[in-house]
Amino acid sequence: MQSKEKNNNEIIILGVDPGTTIMGFGLIKVKKNNMEFMLMDELLLSKYDSHALRLKKIFERTLQLIDTYHPDEMALEAPFFGKNVQSMLKLGRAQGVAMAAGLYREVAITEYLPKKIKMAVTGSGNASKEQVAKMLKSMLGITIPKNLDSTDGLAAAVCHFYNRKNISHGKSYSGWGAFVKQNKGRVK
Amino acid sequence: MQSKEKNNNEIIILGVDPGTTIMGFGLIKVKKNNMEFMLMDELLLSKYDSHALRLKKIFERTLQLIDTYHPDEMALEAPFFGKNVQSMLKLGRAQGVAMAAGLYREVAITEYLPKKIKMAVTGSGNASKEQVAKMLKSMLGITIPKNLDSTDGLAAAVCHFYNRKNISHGKSYSGWGAFVKQNKGRVK
Repeated sequence: MQSKEKNNNEIIILGVDPGTTIMGFGLIKVKKNNMEFMLMDELLLSKYDSHALRLKKIFERTLQLIDTYHPDEMALEAPFFGKNVQSMLKLGRAQGVAMAAGLYREVAITEYLPKKIKMAVTGSGNASKEQVAKMLKSMLGITIPKNLDSTDGLAAAVCHFYNRKNISHGKSYSGWGAFVKQNKGRVK
Repeated sequence: MQSKEKNNNEIIILGVDPGTTIMGFGLIKVKKNNMEFMLMDELLLSKYDSHALRLKKIFERTLQLIDTYHPDEMALEAPFFGKNVQSMLKLGRAQGVAMAAGLYREVAITEYLPKKIKMAVTGSGNASKEQVAKMLKSMLGITIPKNLDSTDGLAAAVCHFYNRKNISHGKSYSGWGAFVKQNKGRVK
């Protein structure tokens, strides 16, 4: 387990924004309350015809990210409203398979609404993708990517960095059991 | 792999009906075009406060069923309409984690609408749970359980038995890759 080799004060956060056509994801390392950029990318799903194949790709990539970088915590961008019931069912499935990977590996998951993520990163819940990307550039020194979808996952990780102190009250926790115990009613 | 020890003409079908408060599941064995009842049960989720913990239980139980009984194919009861977007998002997540287990283990998944399942089992798309249970009793010799939710998973498996001939045109397929190839556009 890489987590055992890590410094106790070092936390890795995986942020994911799973959608039905694209999944953005990013990783940050938190050392002594400072964020350090690790990586950011996107998984293009629109090239796969089948919805089920897209779900498989989301699950596999999330699992691969967990098994490669051993994040301690996972932040999920999760809208709670959408255009119609069918699109929400599909979005729910995309979120479900990404969550399954985290749940399977016992990585604590916290959900954030898109507005909350924008607020945490830029100070405004109505910020544009460009504003979020610019803020991430100045915070973490990233090069702004062509496709801004990949910054959504990173933004979720950054949002979690700012909010996790409120969750854990300064304590670190690990494993899903401990997370559920400590955050009863938080993740519904 | 148990599948290698199995007779080529023997197929095991896992049927699941994942919901946010209960998951019904059932297994049938198909030998020379005859169904044989294996098991039927339900996973009670309402006792868990957290939505995330429920998702974890659905994923783990589905994975456990696959690893114990090595089904060749999986049938999913999947409504496509619901009361509101929030309940559909939650239902989508429940379906997503169950599907993730099947996708992870490369078990071919086919979705069926509730009406289609009722139609396949009873001949009427508007049949009651009681009528479905009675039909399953006469087909498979099951004892009707107290809680009829567990028959929903079994009914999905039976529905797949009747419909899989149409899918595979008499050929058997195994593995997700082959399934996607042969059923392009079928699972959306």
